[in-house]
Amino acid sequence: MIQRLAVGIDLGGTNLKIALVDQAGSILAHRIADADAAAGPATMIARCRAIVKALMAEVGVSHDDIIGVGLGSPGPLSSSRGIIFHAVNLPGWRNIPLRSDMAAALDLPVILENDGNAAAFGEYWAGVGQRRFDLVMFTLGTGVGGGVILGGEVLHGHFENAAELGHTIVEVDGLPCNCGKRGCLEQYASASAVAQRVKKAITGGEACLLFDRVQAGEAIDSEQVMEAARQGDSLCQHIVHEACRYLAMACVNVQHTFNPAKIVLGGGLAQAGDDFIMRVKAQVDQMRWQLCDDYPEITLGQLGYEAGMIGAACLAWQVGERKRIGEVTD
Amino acid sequence: MIQRLAVGIDLGGTNLKIALVDQAGSILAHRIADADAAAGPATMIARCRAIVKALMAEVGVSHDDIIGVGLGSPGPLSSSRGIIFHAVNLPGWRNIPLRSDMAAALDLPVILENDGNAAAFGEYWAGVGQRRFDLVMFTLGTGVGGGVILGGEVLHGHFENAAELGHTIVEVDGLPCNCGKRGCLEQYASASAVAQRVKKAITGGEACLLFDRVQAGEAIDSEQVMEAARQGDSLCQHIVHEACRYLAMACVNVQHTFNPAKIVLGGGLAQAGDDFIMRVKAQVDQMRWQLCDDYPEITLGQLGYEAGMIGAACLAWQVGERKRIGEVTD
Repeated sequence: MIQRLAVGIDLGGTNLKIALVDQAGSILAHRIADADAAAGPATMIARCRAIVKALMAEVGVSHDDIIGVGLGSPGPLSSSRGIIFHAVNLPGWRNIPLRSDMAAALDLPVILENDGNAAAFGEYWAGVGQRRFDLVMFTLGTGVGGGVILGGEVLHGHFENAAELGHTIVEVDGLPCNCGKRGCLEQYASASAVAQRVKKAITGGEACLLFDRVQAGEAIDSEQVMEAARQGDSLCQHIVHEACRYLAMACVNVQHTFNPAKIVLGGGLAQAGDDFIMRVKAQVDQMRWQLCDDYPEITLGQLGYEAGMIGAACLAWQVGERKRIGEVTD
Repeated sequence: MIQRLAVGIDLGGTNLKIALVDQAGSILAHRIADADAAAGPATMIARCRAIVKALMAEVGVSHDDIIGVGLGSPGPLSSSRGIIFHAVNLPGWRNIPLRSDMAAALDLPVILENDGNAAAFGEYWAGVGQRRFDLVMFTLGTGVGGGVILGGEVLHGHFENAAELGHTIVEVDGLPCNCGKRGCLEQYASASAVAQRVKKAITGGEACLLFDRVQAGEAIDSEQVMEAARQGDSLCQHIVHEACRYLAMACVNVQHTFNPAKIVLGGGLAQAGDDFIMRVKAQVDQMRWQLCDDYPEITLGQLGYEAGMIGAACLAWQVGERKRIGEVTD
């Protein structure tokens, strides 16, 4: 019997990640390529087509063995209409009918989904959730993305823009955000924000283990900040503490809104692993309520940087399973 | 044809509200009685039984004409198991199997639901939602309750404690809350909190139009605070402004989590009507994002103080409709 596979594509501002994924959510082959988003959607789609063909050849499957394509993208977008409205990290991309264009290029059915939702669905299907536990996910990367899985379904909301958890406000009149608001979680708890806040403080004259690096014009990232915090650097400890405190506040608020079994943390900042989770949990312990024991388990994602492409492919699998049992026709 | 009806009971710390409600959500008869919660569940149940009998006699229906009973109660509780765990406003009520006790006393099927969820379901079924629009509701009374209706269903969450929106944190290290946390929305935007904060400021020596009333030992309520704010009292304006600002923050956070069509405000503070809604909307306008136009409509509830008992009855109607189409058996 020939194995059937789904294509998962994770379209980012920097990287294009593409994988062939089986029904259990395991990757059989994958590529990470330069996204080159500035070259526009047509170039991106042609690149995807070439990579998918190469992966199929590598695994030894034909077009008929592919059940469909899941495509995770930065938003805002409409999953139901297959259109990217305005992707902040894809410069110049406005009102792009990416689903139909990609479907035509690959001659396959395509599902378009917000990248945070796709990552959360990956963790639900093949990671922490194991297709049994609803979950809420925060992806702590360049920004803070979110995804909510309820009853095994991605929550979209009336305007199809649910689970933008990075833009929930954690501080009235807080730091300004690119979205036009102030005090968004993203400004405190994204990997980029943590690095940027340290850099800004150093530039402003504060002492820090990373001072020489910043003075030399080198980039710093959240992993270096976490390491400096572990070594006792007080500036980095302060910034990491604030990130964990506001993230803990967001977790408590998720507890009181969705009351899920699990809250999953992924993305660059979560790469610090147990050290990071322990810090967040310690803050949650200080601020959670005492009326009843309805605390979600807070845990790292199991799929790491692959959550987005795996989740996108699993969305295609979900549709595929429904077609077989007659819930969906296309 | 004899009309069939559902019983809706709204069990509060102060009042017991009971109504006979038709399938459209209209009240045919109702009573508001002293809750006397301190006398315990058995007394409460006996009182409910007597009132239901009186209402049936008033409308001229028999036991066979009643399809079931919906019972809204303060939580935390388990709707699926029919147990009240620990109702803060019902002193001494711990682990009460209220659903089975009430069902035995009335000889009718009973649904137990959190009171905030029941009110939101009432607005969904017979008020703002008209059984077409999902919505999120804040009830701004003694505390701040919440309810979330998704796909026409009450959102319960894994631990059955979803939509405790009054206990989402709006200010890290903010005012202490009865729940053991700090900075809960309830401490800023409940009707009681608004009145209490003004009273405390007056007792601390601040000038206020309500000064004489407080000095004379009279109670003040949120309507008086709203009226004083309209008359230009700066203390009351400040407290009302803070309530509306934190409520606006909570509305923006609901936008970015559930992304619903409508956000409904009810309870005592919302009795100030258009003046109140305008204040909240003005704050939302200042803090909302600019990336896309996915703003929920923010609106007053249409059912006022009757939302809880109507919603409880409509939950019984929802089960009744499902039994007829074979989705539920009991």
